[in-house]
Amino acid sequence: MPFITIKNIEGKTVEQKRILVKKLTNVISETFEVDPNVIFIFFEDFSKDNYGKKGELFSYLEE
Amino acid sequence: MPFITIKNIEGKTVEQKRILVKKLTNVISETFEVDPNVIFIFFEDFSKDNYGKKGELFSYLEE
Amino acid sequence: MPFITIKNIEGKTVEQKRILVKKLTNVISETFEVDPNVIFIFFEDFSKDNYGKKGELFSYLEE
Amino acid sequence: MPFITIKNIEGKTVEQKRILVKKLTNVISETFEVDPNVIFIFFEDFSKDNYGKKGELFSYLEE
Amino acid sequence: MPFITIKNIEGKTVEQKRILVKKLTNVISETFEVDPNVIFIFFEDFSKDNYGKKGELFSYLEE
Amino acid sequence: MPFITIKNIEGKTVEQKRILVKKLTNVISETFEVDPNVIFIFFEDFSKDNYGKKGELFSYLEE
Repeated sequence: MPFITIKNIEGKTVEQKRILVKKLTNVISETFEVDPNVIFIFFEDFSKDNYGKKGELFSYLEE
Repeated sequence: MPFITIKNIEGKTVEQKRILVKKLTNVISETFEVDPNVIFIFFEDFSKDNYGKKGELFSYLEE
Repeated sequence: MPFITIKNIEGKTVEQKRILVKKLTNVISETFEVDPNVIFIFFEDFSKDNYGKKGELFSYLEE
Repeated sequence: MPFITIKNIEGKTVEQKRILVKKLTNVISETFEVDPNVIFIFFEDFSKDNYGKKGELFSYLEE
Repeated sequence: MPFITIKNIEGKTVEQKRILVKKLTNVISETFEVDPNVIFIFFEDFSKDNYGKKGELFSYLEE
Repeated sequence: MPFITIKNIEGKTVEQKRILVKKLTNVISETFEVDPNVIFIFFEDFSKDNYGKKGELFSYLEE
């Protein structure tokens, strides 16, 4: 009964998330030998003002 | 000094959350024998596009 | 389908946790009108060396 | 730069986790079109005394 | 490679967050002797309706 | 009332954590203009078998 949380910079589409839910569920079900019906997946999207690295907010980093 | 996080699909009212904060605080204070003044509760609401199970996003599941 | 996480200083017994799981499930099921079968509860216990407040680790605080 | 956390009941082997890290990285890299070098994965294992559902601790549930 | 999450009541400015990212990165890099380039910082802002203490939602507490 | 969580590879000493709690509390109190008495800090240490990047567990990465 795994619970997966995916934190990421906002901007991915619902369709991308939908595909990822499918693929992650398959991969986890296979590798951990668990029923895909009890795999739960959460997306937590961060804005560029709420995420920093290298001592700077992402919204000010050139990348 | 317990810290409680409640992740749930969005849609609960402020009044429901308010009641839940009261009841959770009572129940935890009693069972864990801690001062209710040092019990902290956070709600994290998920949209149906950010939560999946059974290999599908909640917004596409019929339930 | 709420997911509850309870962070606390280590030291609570399995019996206390067992009672709390029962009571939390009842209270959440009632207040949020959700099936108790889909309420999930996690305990995360912290040692006194991994938790600080007021600028000091709990293991050095007199309380 | 996705950060993935996998909470699960303890008992999976290092080899299973190693395989899962590989597969998850591939799947996320592909679907979200991100460099596999900036995908971070954390495992958080729960004991059966620290996880409950249906109003009961997992260690007391027959499953 | 530390990952820092800062949960707080909403209301801090981007400029305050930007300064905090800088200062936190310095302090952690120094104390833990890690490269500042691999320090990641996330802000999670809570509304007053999603945070409670002392048995009451923050939006109803006078403080 | 900020709550800070620091996830890191295990191996830091209690003394390093103690110093970091002090410094983080100062920096956050100053920048966010909050009372240092209501700043809470948690450390979550990961073993090298529970953390992966670049598609590999940390325990197998040469770094």
